[in-house]
Amino acid sequence: MARRDRPLRCSSHHHGPAGKSSGQTGAGRMSGPDVVLHGHFESGNVYKVTLLLALTGTAYDYRHVDIFAGETRDDNFTALNTFQEVPVLEHGGTVVTQSDVILRYLADQLGRFGGKNEDEQRRVQEWMAWSSNKLINGISQARFGSRWANYDPATITFFQNRARAAFDLMDRHLADHPWLVGDEPTIADLSAAGYIYLVNEAGLDTTAWRNMLSWMGRLSVLPGWHHPDKLPQKNAIVAPTVTFDAPADD
Amino acid sequence: MARRDRPLRCSSHHHGPAGKSSGQTGAGRMSGPDVVLHGHFESGNVYKVTLLLALTGTAYDYRHVDIFAGETRDDNFTALNTFQEVPVLEHGGTVVTQSDVILRYLADQLGRFGGKNEDEQRRVQEWMAWSSNKLINGISQARFGSRWANYDPATITFFQNRARAAFDLMDRHLADHPWLVGDEPTIADLSAAGYIYLVNEAGLDTTAWRNMLSWMGRLSVLPGWHHPDKLPQKNAIVAPTVTFDAPADD
Repeated sequence: MARRDRPLRCSSHHHGPAGKSSGQTGAGRMSGPDVVLHGHFESGNVYKVTLLLALTGTAYDYRHVDIFAGETRDDNFTALNTFQEVPVLEHGGTVVTQSDVILRYLADQLGRFGGKNEDEQRRVQEWMAWSSNKLINGISQARFGSRWANYDPATITFFQNRARAAFDLMDRHLADHPWLVGDEPTIADLSAAGYIYLVNEAGLDTTAWRNMLSWMGRLSVLPGWHHPDKLPQKNAIVAPTVTFDAPADD
Repeated sequence: MARRDRPLRCSSHHHGPAGKSSGQTGAGRMSGPDVVLHGHFESGNVYKVTLLLALTGTAYDYRHVDIFAGETRDDNFTALNTFQEVPVLEHGGTVVTQSDVILRYLADQLGRFGGKNEDEQRRVQEWMAWSSNKLINGISQARFGSRWANYDPATITFFQNRARAAFDLMDRHLADHPWLVGDEPTIADLSAAGYIYLVNEAGLDTTAWRNMLSWMGRLSVLPGWHHPDKLPQKNAIVAPTVTFDAPADD
């Protein structure tokens, strides 16, 4: 995993198309022309990554991949990503796949949202592993199976119940923790949030889980936050305008 | 995630109960009395961890957790692990949960099986994220749902097909790669292997996937390898007898 031996910092104050703002795109900074994200607007796993990029004000070149037309399976894309999935991040010569690995890579590069110390970073990894297996597996499969893939009703119910059990656990944790790890939002929250705003499309709702609802509220007011329905639906240069204070070196 | 600023190395040549062999258990080494693993013998996720400990000759104190009696949900265990799951690793004062995070922690501590450089380490994380979502989710749920939980047959079939699609992808990759990442086995292989020897219990077989079969063969002849049916079924001090050359410092 990337350590911070190349601690590229995000340029703040992006106000124009990537690479056009002056003075912010030099060596040692992570910026638009260097960052290419391949994705699809229906994917909560892509949303996780766009959310981190938005919250850190990172500009990027977005490439729409038509997953329903089979583009993730063509030879060019498979050469980029063995797993034939979006999202894929390119940063300079580095290609990173799998949404949680991309989040970790970006957090390392940007020096934000990764957890404050080694212990928090490990807790973040634990939460991402758990939510991938329980929370996201539940929501995303119930949603995919009912919206696009025509799964057997028993299978959809299985995944809805899997999600509800995950809501129970998260809600219990969030009763006395503002965020999944530590006292600031991390990529663990962003990863869990990948599908949390899409629960209605999975035949679920979050009304009964009040602590989780509050946590979603805290996420939704972070500067730069956007809903998954704001994902680009075609190729685009995305230049978030959020500004933030540069993190202190650690 | 733990970086190698505490590069504890595994003691080789364990021949007795942990802590009893002379001279191998001092500071700066990872050894039996320091390492406690909580698990259950039916869990492929526990197997992953015992396999890495065995392959590196690491002694440990094994604590049986009766998951079927609800022990993962009692207050003491929940205080140890919010997620109420095995495996849980304790090492000194550090508690680590989620099998892939434990593997990464141990690889960092032991300086083995983690990948040779930053790029390989990231590839390892990608493979673990993918196999957790596709391969292991498929096998483990088909197995659990048919052996213990009485899932609807359509749901079991769903997970079997998910596993088969994952076999296809792995088999294609292993056609021209000896291991999932790089030219040596890594925790990516061990993680994927967590359930691969249990496919029969999931109503699956691996006969048609020849490259994957060869890879399983390569895994099975690694010094110290053991089948999942060799997991301890009660509390035990596990003192692997495998020996290996200490890795060069990097």
